[in-house]
Amino acid sequence: MKIDLPRPPIRVAGFRFAGVCCGLKESGKRDVALIVSDRPATAAGAFTTNRVKAAPVVVGQERLKRGVVQAVLVNSGNANAYTGREGERAARQLTALAARRLGIDEQMVVPSSTGRIGVPLPLARVRRGVSQAARELREDGFYEALEGMMTTDAFPKFALQRVDIGGRTVTIAGMAKGAGMIAPHMATMLAYVLTDASASRSALGRALSVALPASFNQIVVDGDMSTNDTVLLLANGAAGNRTVTARSGEFPLFRRAVTDVMRRLARLVVKDGEGATKVIDIVVRGARSERDAARVADAIARSPLCKTAFFGGDPYAGRIVCAAGYSGARFDPAKLDVFLDDVAIVRRGVEVVRRVEKRAARIVAADEFTLTLDLHAGSAAARRMTSDLTVDYVRFNSDYRT
Amino acid sequence: MKIDLPRPPIRVAGFRFAGVCCGLKESGKRDVALIVSDRPATAAGAFTTNRVKAAPVVVGQERLKRGVVQAVLVNSGNANAYTGREGERAARQLTALAARRLGIDEQMVVPSSTGRIGVPLPLARVRRGVSQAARELREDGFYEALEGMMTTDAFPKFALQRVDIGGRTVTIAGMAKGAGMIAPHMATMLAYVLTDASASRSALGRALSVALPASFNQIVVDGDMSTNDTVLLLANGAAGNRTVTARSGEFPLFRRAVTDVMRRLARLVVKDGEGATKVIDIVVRGARSERDAARVADAIARSPLCKTAFFGGDPYAGRIVCAAGYSGARFDPAKLDVFLDDVAIVRRGVEVVRRVEKRAARIVAADEFTLTLDLHAGSAAARRMTSDLTVDYVRFNSDYRT
Repeated sequence: MKIDLPRPPIRVAGFRFAGVCCGLKESGKRDVALIVSDRPATAAGAFTTNRVKAAPVVVGQERLKRGVVQAVLVNSGNANAYTGREGERAARQLTALAARRLGIDEQMVVPSSTGRIGVPLPLARVRRGVSQAARELREDGFYEALEGMMTTDAFPKFALQRVDIGGRTVTIAGMAKGAGMIAPHMATMLAYVLTDASASRSALGRALSVALPASFNQIVVDGDMSTNDTVLLLANGAAGNRTVTARSGEFPLFRRAVTDVMRRLARLVVKDGEGATKVIDIVVRGARSERDAARVADAIARSPLCKTAFFGGDPYAGRIVCAAGYSGARFDPAKLDVFLDDVAIVRRGVEVVRRVEKRAARIVAADEFTLTLDLHAGSAAARRMTSDLTVDYVRFNSDYRT
Repeated sequence: MKIDLPRPPIRVAGFRFAGVCCGLKESGKRDVALIVSDRPATAAGAFTTNRVKAAPVVVGQERLKRGVVQAVLVNSGNANAYTGREGERAARQLTALAARRLGIDEQMVVPSSTGRIGVPLPLARVRRGVSQAARELREDGFYEALEGMMTTDAFPKFALQRVDIGGRTVTIAGMAKGAGMIAPHMATMLAYVLTDASASRSALGRALSVALPASFNQIVVDGDMSTNDTVLLLANGAAGNRTVTARSGEFPLFRRAVTDVMRRLARLVVKDGEGATKVIDIVVRGARSERDAARVADAIARSPLCKTAFFGGDPYAGRIVCAAGYSGARFDPAKLDVFLDDVAIVRRGVEVVRRVEKRAARIVAADEFTLTLDLHAGSAAARRMTSDLTVDYVRFNSDYRT
């Protein structure tokens, strides 16, 4: 789906942004982004679990261990993945260059890359881009930085929250890129959530550990998990609030605001699922375990037959039940209920879609709907957000070489 | 792919066949098939492992326990799956009717159904079809029976082998249907392998246990495993050979012939993968365990991004390596080799596709090619046959309602 979100001015106190073009994309669009905090920010992050990790992921994981980050350097148009030792050397050289230009410690610069896998990074070009970005940093450069990290994205993805914490209004702003290679537990996806709140490392870690399972770990576009996925949460304290710790009374408020920003970003990624025409919220409840619930939700979210039926606007209960059946979850098919929004299409194992055919077809034809399965086998639940599988997904991905 | 195989006359001594039309398909094509042996045949079978099993699968599993089968009754156009107790009653009534018309024990009739899931079987029509089929049985009715079990198949799938066993020439003939819902470990797929050889139940069981992992359990079209998958191997002894047992000197010959027939059928199912334009043989070797090898092969065989790249004729090593990375298999990405036929595109973890771009592109553009990954982590291997993911797959499956 192409979505045109209104673009409010986004500033986060103490952060500056730049997005420039150094020539990595044939389109000539921005391809280098820089996010810099005036002071070192406490940081928490999460990275792809793919065994094949891009060079910037290896470097970023190492640097995040210290829990303090001052800049994020992103390039799009080239994933710097599967590029061997030279790729890692390139990531280190580029962050060192950024650090010099910014006058900060290079260990506080986290690199990210996104784009085609297995192509050496054209280092000279990116170096020029880094130097230029360092010169062009602006407090109101949020959208330029976001553009600099987009690849196949059809629209920019961002979310903004303001909450009062310790007598100060703090801002939490998130930007994300990602459309294809979206599997549960991260995606070809970069997301940076920036706040001017003062928050301890443990508060950030805890907030992220709650927000991730409720956001980016719930989304599926094509089931392919990328080599570059990165989510960072940075808090620079510019708002001057009393520091939020994992034990503060304000922590739940902070955690909810972070989760809200990340959920909105994750939903935008699914909406932009390559070629997607709709977003389906899958809810599985009544499972014997969370793992079983997740198995059923994942099987449906990944099933090409379910996803093409969603595309076709076909409320085809048979394919849904079939996917639940091969998911590996333990349940009695004769007890299963399936709902499209609030309309039952399977009741106690019997397909009843014919009685509600018109209503069911109207729901599946919409841009967004909820598919709920009640396994009646226990009390565990899981959620997934997924997109449909369309002719345009195949067209696009059989032709993508940049 | 649409394939026009030459159709040799196929007869298997002691077997008769019929395929008739009772009106289950809008197209008006044959939709009921009957295969009958003049005498009870020893039998071995395998069925879907989906938790949601179609009614005929439940009945067939029960009847196959006795190891003796005399008739197979198939309908297409309706899967009789997820149809509750009435579905099971219908399967029993129809096989009882066939048994009466044929004058045989109803416990020796195995039912199969294939088509849309979750729709009650129009019993009166199918009854008429069964009676008609029983009247029209012919020794040369092989292709009519095969047509009677086809649904979305673009062409009929069959394979024939003759081998000398114990001084007699025995015939092994297989027919199969299946195109979509193809996952490893069976498929929306029905396959019947018939032989006039005399063979013990244990010989059939052993032969099937060797042939399955080398054929139907290796194929992936869309990763969806159906509710109806059935493979039957029937031997009626009409050839008059000395009975083959699992310990006979001729057993290896018999087993190889059965495996050959099943492999050819399985390959035809992949070639007919809905919308498929090519067949890719995936070979993973050098794995720490067979399970790890299978994980890598399955990840690639199921990856929408790899499958769309194959469709586009793009030798995109990055997506292949990425899928291997998230498969869960243990290996060192820096040691990986990847080959398209005999051309290396990744050597010791470094993409070298640019050096061989033209040759690699020519290979991927062909109808069939082999993709080999050497993990250099051990000595285990696995194979998969898969199809590409095409615009026509999505068109077709977003519109399929019969």
